[in-house]
Amino acid sequence: MELNANQSKLAKALSVVSRVAAGSKATLPILNNVLIRVIDNKVTLTATNLDMAVVDYLPTSSSKNGEITVPARLLADFVANLPKGDVKISVKDTKVTISSGKYKSVMNGSLVDDFPELPELDEKKSVIFRIPVDDFKNGMNSVKITTSNDTTRPALTGVYFNTYESGLYIAGTDGYRLAEKKLISGISSEVKAIVPTSSINEVLSSISDDVEEVEILFDESQVCFRMGEIEITSKYIDGSFPDYRKLIPEKTEVDLELKKSELLRVTKLAALFAKEVGGSIILETSTEKGALVVSSVANEFGENDSEIETEISGDARVVLNSRFLLDALNVLDDEDIKVGISGALQPIRIENTKKQDYIHIIMPLKG
Amino acid sequence: MELNANQSKLAKALSVVSRVAAGSKATLPILNNVLIRVIDNKVTLTATNLDMAVVDYLPTSSSKNGEITVPARLLADFVANLPKGDVKISVKDTKVTISSGKYKSVMNGSLVDDFPELPELDEKKSVIFRIPVDDFKNGMNSVKITTSNDTTRPALTGVYFNTYESGLYIAGTDGYRLAEKKLISGISSEVKAIVPTSSINEVLSSISDDVEEVEILFDESQVCFRMGEIEITSKYIDGSFPDYRKLIPEKTEVDLELKKSELLRVTKLAALFAKEVGGSIILETSTEKGALVVSSVANEFGENDSEIETEISGDARVVLNSRFLLDALNVLDDEDIKVGISGALQPIRIENTKKQDYIHIIMPLKG
Repeated sequence: MELNANQSKLAKALSVVSRVAAGSKATLPILNNVLIRVIDNKVTLTATNLDMAVVDYLPTSSSKNGEITVPARLLADFVANLPKGDVKISVKDTKVTISSGKYKSVMNGSLVDDFPELPELDEKKSVIFRIPVDDFKNGMNSVKITTSNDTTRPALTGVYFNTYESGLYIAGTDGYRLAEKKLISGISSEVKAIVPTSSINEVLSSISDDVEEVEILFDESQVCFRMGEIEITSKYIDGSFPDYRKLIPEKTEVDLELKKSELLRVTKLAALFAKEVGGSIILETSTEKGALVVSSVANEFGENDSEIETEISGDARVVLNSRFLLDALNVLDDEDIKVGISGALQPIRIENTKKQDYIHIIMPLKG
Repeated sequence: MELNANQSKLAKALSVVSRVAAGSKATLPILNNVLIRVIDNKVTLTATNLDMAVVDYLPTSSSKNGEITVPARLLADFVANLPKGDVKISVKDTKVTISSGKYKSVMNGSLVDDFPELPELDEKKSVIFRIPVDDFKNGMNSVKITTSNDTTRPALTGVYFNTYESGLYIAGTDGYRLAEKKLISGISSEVKAIVPTSSINEVLSSISDDVEEVEILFDESQVCFRMGEIEITSKYIDGSFPDYRKLIPEKTEVDLELKKSELLRVTKLAALFAKEVGGSIILETSTEKGALVVSSVANEFGENDSEIETEISGDARVVLNSRFLLDALNVLDDEDIKVGISGALQPIRIENTKKQDYIHIIMPLKG
C-alpha cells in the first residue's frame, strides 16, 4: 500500500477519525487504530468504537492498492506536526513509513483482519432525508441537551427520530424535561429510531464549514449521516422511547409573552443565589404587580428577586431547576418567547412566539 | 456604607479579587469574602488567602464611608450579570443591598473585624524597581515554568529575585532544569527574595491591557506588585534558594546554532513516539552527517528520527525529557538559538543567539 496526500487535508481527516478511535473504551486495542485502505486512487480512513464508525474519503495524487491499520492518535498528531506539503505513507509488511521531505518515521501497524468494521448500510432499503446544515445543527443542539446520561435507561440517552403526520421530528427527554423539534414537513416515509447522543455529538463536531447539507439514511438497524467527505454510521439504541406526545400539555393556565434576554438575565441572577439549594428558583406571576417575579429561595448567602413586567392573565407559581431553564432559553431561536405556567405541579412549556417548530417542557420541583 | 460604581469597572475589579478569595483553601470561611471599604469617595476591594492579598482601587460617583465583607464569588458573578449602568451597594447592619435599575438583591455580609488583612508594606523601608510591562511578563513567563510544585521543597516553588553585579535577576529551578533572566542592569540596591509562583501567576493574570509598567516593592518580609489600580502583596517563601550560579556550565563541548522553529518541530515529532518512555528523547550530534539527530527511543509504536543540518564541531549524545525541552523552546524570544551539549551526564544549555539576558539549563536523563 502506498499513498501521497496533502498534509493539511490528511491532518484534518485524521483528526476526525482519531477522535472516534481514541473515544473507544479500547477493551480491544485495535479500536485505537485507524484503518487506511487504498483502492484505485481512493483513500478511505475508518475508525470505530463498535457502536459507531466514521469514514473519511481522501484524494490521493498517486497510490498503490492495499490496507493497514495504524495507531490513530499517533498518526494524527504526527501528520499535524509535519510542515505543509506532500505526505507519503507506504507499507511493508506491518511497518508503516510516513515521510515528508526530511521528516520520516516508522510506525508499527496491524493487519486489517482483526479490525471490526461495521456492516455496510443497504442504501436501497434505506429511508433517506436531506436537511440543510444549519437546520440540522440547530435542531440537534436544541434537542440533545434534554437527553439523559443515565445508562440504566438507555432509551433516554439518545435522540428519537420519528415521523408523525407527514413530518420528521426529533425528541429528547431525561424524565425531567423534554424537547421536540420538527425537522421536515410533507414527507411520506416512516422512521422510528433512537440515535445515541454520543453519535449525534460526533456528527456535529465532524461537520466542516463547506458542508451545505446533511444526508441521513435510516435502515433497519443503523443510521448513516453523510456530510461532504465524511460518513458517520451509528447503531440504534434498543428499547422503546416514551410516548412523549402525551406528556406535552396542550394548554397552560397562564401564558406569558417575554423577551428571552430578560428572562435569561433574571434566571442567571436568581441561580447565583440558589447554589445551596440545588439551583432551584421560583417563577411566580402576579396580577397585582403585573409582572413575572423570578426569585431564589432564601438561604445563608441572601436572597434575590427580579420582576419582569408583562401582561399577566392569572396567578401561578412554580419551582424550577434554574439550570434546566437556562438550557432551554439558550437554545431558543428568537428573542420573543412564550412561557406557559399551570401551577406548582404542572410542567411549564416554552416556545418561540412566532416559529411553531420547537417545544420545550420542564417538570417542576417540589417547592 | 454606600457606593455607586460603573457596572463594567466594578465587575472587572471584582473578577480580579474574587479569584484570590476563591483560591484560598477556605479553612477560614471569611477568606471567601471580599472586603469593601469606602473612605472619602475612594473604594478599595481586598481579598486574601493569607499568603497573598490583592487590593483593587475603584472610583465612585457618590459614597458614604464604611466597610463590610461579602462573599466574593457571589458578588462578582452577580455584578457581572447586571446590565451596563450604575450599580449601587449599600449596607445596613450586615445586610448588603446591591441594586441596578430594576434588579436588586440582598446578601448576607460579615463584619470586617474577623477579616485577616496582611500587614501594610513600609514603603520607606522598601527597595523599589520599575519594569516595563512586556519585560516583566516575558521575564516571569520564561522563568516560572522551571519552578517546582513539590511543596516538600518550598524554596523551589517560587521565583528567586536576586541582585548580582548591579543587575536584578530572577531564577527558578525544580532540580531538573533551571532558568535565569536578567531584568534590570545598573542598579545599586540589594534584594534576595523567593516569591511564590502562585503569587506571580496571580500578578500576571491581573495585569490589564492599559498597564505600562509594573512597580515592585520589596521590604523585609513582603513584596508588593503595583499595576495600575491593582496591588498584589505576597509573603516571601522562607528558606534559602540553591546557589544556582554554580550549576550553570560556563562552557559546553559542542555548541550548535539552530533555528528554534526547526528544533521545536523535530522535538514535537520525536516526543509523540516517546509517550511510553516518559517522554525521553535523544539528541545526538554527528560530525559525519553534519547534523543534529533528534530521535525517540524505539518502542512498541515505532520509531522516529529527524536530522537538522548545522555546523557540528564534535560528537555528543544526551537523553532529555522532551517536555522540558519544549517548555524551554517555547519561552525563548528569538528564532536564532544556541544549544550547548557536553555529553550524556552534563546539563545542556539553551540561549538566544543575540540576547544575552536568558539562560536555560536542562539536566540529562540516564539513557
